[in-house]
Amino acid sequence: MERHFDEELKNLKQRLLHMADTAQEMIGLAVKCLVDRNKPLAQDVFGLEQKVNHMEIEIEEEVLKLLALRQPAAGDLRLLTAILKINNDLERVADQAVNITERTLDFLKQPPLKPLMDVPHMANLAQRMIKNSLEAFVNHDPRLAQRVCEDDDEVDRVNDQIFRELLTCMMQDPKSINRAVDLILISRNIERIADHATNISEDVVFIEEGKNIKHHIEEEN
Amino acid sequence: MERHFDEELKNLKQRLLHMADTAQEMIGLAVKCLVDRNKPLAQDVFGLEQKVNHMEIEIEEEVLKLLALRQPAAGDLRLLTAILKINNDLERVADQAVNITERTLDFLKQPPLKPLMDVPHMANLAQRMIKNSLEAFVNHDPRLAQRVCEDDDEVDRVNDQIFRELLTCMMQDPKSINRAVDLILISRNIERIADHATNISEDVVFIEEGKNIKHHIEEEN
Repeated sequence: MERHFDEELKNLKQRLLHMADTAQEMIGLAVKCLVDRNKPLAQDVFGLEQKVNHMEIEIEEEVLKLLALRQPAAGDLRLLTAILKINNDLERVADQAVNITERTLDFLKQPPLKPLMDVPHMANLAQRMIKNSLEAFVNHDPRLAQRVCEDDDEVDRVNDQIFRELLTCMMQDPKSINRAVDLILISRNIERIADHATNISEDVVFIEEGKNIKHHIEEEN
Repeated sequence: MERHFDEELKNLKQRLLHMADTAQEMIGLAVKCLVDRNKPLAQDVFGLEQKVNHMEIEIEEEVLKLLALRQPAAGDLRLLTAILKINNDLERVADQAVNITERTLDFLKQPPLKPLMDVPHMANLAQRMIKNSLEAFVNHDPRLAQRVCEDDDEVDRVNDQIFRELLTCMMQDPKSINRAVDLILISRNIERIADHATNISEDVVFIEEGKNIKHHIEEEN
């Protein structure tokens, strides 16, 4: 029975990894749609969102089933509730990829705005953070999780820089306003994706080291 | 023992209500700071965020404790995991109130922009949604929860309208760009608060009616 439970947990983790891969793929497609001005990719993003939504519901049901049937002890309990939270974060990452895509479709109705600033770079960073946060979870690697939290500072820095550059761009050329606002909103969506990766990583540090680094009040836990 | 558990659940719900009140108060203060150009209120928001962060950690610990000690059956299990999710949503609502406040401090560095558009109205709607979603949860009221989901459509509508008005405003007067972008970002933050209220309400409908209205795939649950 105990061994069976281990396998069930392993299986759940695999499903979470698969969901994270899909969410990452959605971010990649959304940004490719923007950079290559390739509108049909938007439909791919919307299609994958349906998949992620189903995965979320199935994973949640499975966790509830395991909680009820296996009555797990403290350690496994924390693991299962972490899976519930990560599941939720990943679904919201997928939502953000959809938001990016919708905003991109608006952006593409207008003539090209020459510089996309560092938006694709920022998206790459966020994708890597999602990947690493899940790897940190599955491989019990709190140091990798810490690195994700550090990457978040870089994302915030790039986001601020993009914001300032786009404000300047709008002031110099008011015809660019609509598109520049689109890019500002897209970069906010990417920032939120990075925040979700950070949430996941904070949970990993908590599970692995029993240390709550959320809200920077470690000393209390 | 069973009766003791009921009391523990009741106590948890009370704490969640208190957390929701505090989050709502933060939204109110953030918007008052914006409307009255009253900078010192920002500090009140930041102070309350600390409180909310503590509440989140304490509620999560309490839920984990109850899960481990009481080994609850299906119904209570779903209730406890819902509390875990609502707890998480409320903490993010508080984060959004902080984001509104930070953006407001930037906004207030600049001369007044005459119309605040419907931003305060939108904030009122979002506050009411948070209040109602928690009431629906505590009072087992799925119809009230449904109403919250309907209010979300109104928030989205107001948000789109604000967005279009501010784009026009920037194009007519490029000197307003910085402030108009601030307001666009503030209205996005309010929209996210409404989204969290909607998440909570979807959970309530799920608990009360066993019907998953998330992602509109009711037929499958």
